[in-house]
This record gives sequence, C-alpha cells and structure tokens, in this order.
Amino acid sequence: MTVLTDALSANNASYAAGFTKGDLALPPAKKYLVLTCMDARIDPAAALGIELGDAHVIRNAGASAVDGLRSVIISEQLLGTTEVVLIKHTGCGMLTFKNEDAHAIVQKQLGADSTGIDFLPFPDLEQAVKDDVEYLKKSEFVPDSVKISGWVYQVETGKVVNIVPA
Amino acid sequence: MTVLTDALSANNASYAAGFTKGDLALPPAKKYLVLTCMDARIDPAAALGIELGDAHVIRNAGASAVDGLRSVIISEQLLGTTEVVLIKHTGCGMLTFKNEDAHAIVQKQLGADSTGIDFLPFPDLEQAVKDDVEYLKKSEFVPDSVKISGWVYQVETGKVVNIVPA
Repeated sequence: MTVLTDALSANNASYAAGFTKGDLALPPAKKYLVLTCMDARIDPAAALGIELGDAHVIRNAGASAVDGLRSVIISEQLLGTTEVVLIKHTGCGMLTFKNEDAHAIVQKQLGADSTGIDFLPFPDLEQAVKDDVEYLKKSEFVPDSVKISGWVYQVETGKVVNIVPA
Repeated sequence: MTVLTDALSANNASYAAGFTKGDLALPPAKKYLVLTCMDARIDPAAALGIELGDAHVIRNAGASAVDGLRSVIISEQLLGTTEVVLIKHTGCGMLTFKNEDAHAIVQKQLGADSTGIDFLPFPDLEQAVKDDVEYLKKSEFVPDSVKISGWVYQVETGKVVNIVPA
C-alpha cells in the first residue's frame, strides 16, 4: 500500500458506511452519457448534478469522441442510452502541445517510440467541440435518434456553456 | 435544447453560483490518476474522496487499461502523475457479453459492421484487474517508478477492495 491508497481507503470506508444505493440497475436510469475530459479540475457529478445511477460518464484526455467511441457504442447499443452530452473545457492540456511534441517528450523521458500513437491534441477549443459532435453524428455506430450536444466547461467559473445544441 | 440539458444547465447554475476553486493548476495536485469504469453506479470523487484538482479521472467501458493507455501516457509523461489507481467493479456490463455478441447486436440494430472493433469485454473480474495492472506495468510507456494498484468497487456496498497492491 501507499500513503495515497491508505488515504483513499480511509475516505472510502466513510463513504461505504453511509452508502444506501446498493440496488441500482446496471443501465443508466436517465438514459444519457456524459463524455468529458480526465482533467483534475472537473467533477462531472457535482458540476451537472448527476445522481448516482443516472448516467454513464466517459472521461479521457481531451474528452475525445474518437477515443471514446467504443464506450459510446456500448452505452447506446448495449445499455440503452439515447443522449450524449459532450463537454470539453477551458485550459485543457490538449490545447498546449502537438503530437510531435508528445512523441519527443516520451522519447526523451523514456527512450520509447510513441510515434504510432495519435495523442489527439487540438488547437481550437470550440472547433474541437463542434468537430467531435460532428464525428459522433456522422458515425455509422450512432443512430440519428441519439441526441448529441456540445459544451465547454469553464474551469475558472464552474460554468458550462453550450456550443452545439442537441 | 432538451429536457435533459435544461435540467443539467439548471443544476450547473447552482454549482457555479457556489464555485470557489477557479484558481487550481492544470497538473493534478496529488499527482495520481484513477482509471475506472463509465458505469452509472460509480461516483469516483465521492467514493474515494477525491478533491477537485487532485487527480486525473479516466473512465471508459470496463475501466480498460488498453483503451485508456493514451490518456495514461499524457497524464504521467506530460502532466507529472506518478501513481495509477485502477478500479473495476462488480456487476460490470463487460462481464455479460462477448465481442461476437456486441457485433451481432450492432449489426441487428444499426445494420453496421463493427467487427473491426474490439469492445474489450472480460469474463472474470479479478483476473481482468490483474491483467490490466500487468498491462500497464509492462508498457514501455509507463516507467517502473509509477506505482500501480488494482481494485474492485462493489456497487452493492460502495466499498473498494484491493486486488493488486501498489
């Protein structure tokens, strides 16, 4: 164990002691999914008022729809979700580098060749939201009946701003 | 807008009204990442006591380390995290189907060929935790200095149980 896992275990013991939602069903009760970034400054459940059991939450570096597609398909085709809320955010790390920068850093720090990996950075935040919504809308694996909206979360204010209406 | 996005927007307005953490730094303050499932019954921040700004949270269908590798590399190589907490959970949807089942469902429901997609299901929960920890430990993109532990979250009790110590 580590200092960290000891602390997380202690926090979890408190959580479990007051836990009352052990009977929730597997499929999300409100039939939607949130796709957002892994960024440490985002707490999707708190920021959007997502109740336990209501929604799938997919998170990756940059809230990438390309990276998240496997999970999105499982969510809507196998578990019945019908709405996607895609949220990128201000100050995203993915705005700060290009693929070649990441490849060079990995090469320098680890001596490993990561040029086969597309790290999916993007230079323009709102355009990236629009592009990812469009990517999902055009995917043969996402039916037209699925509603998709695109948003920006402001890490400075805690607010979400709509970019692409559902 | 939709009924859902109207509700989430209203919830977010309340959250933003009380928001006081607009000055957090981009890199996670406590230098760790949690990799867990998108399942609606998991609230990682609440269940582990993750404070805003402390940790990256990566979520996908099944808490797959293979699917999450791009995000893990960005987290530890570009943003300085040094510990990975990998958490799968009881009752996971990924235990309930095989790739050929998912391919058949997508074909039937959408008429689309998804056989090129590995949906990454797994038949044994604890073994999958061990396999994913091992996958990260063996990756040339994850240095030996990164501590990695594997856990199971019990959706019935809210408890995390350690499977692989860090």
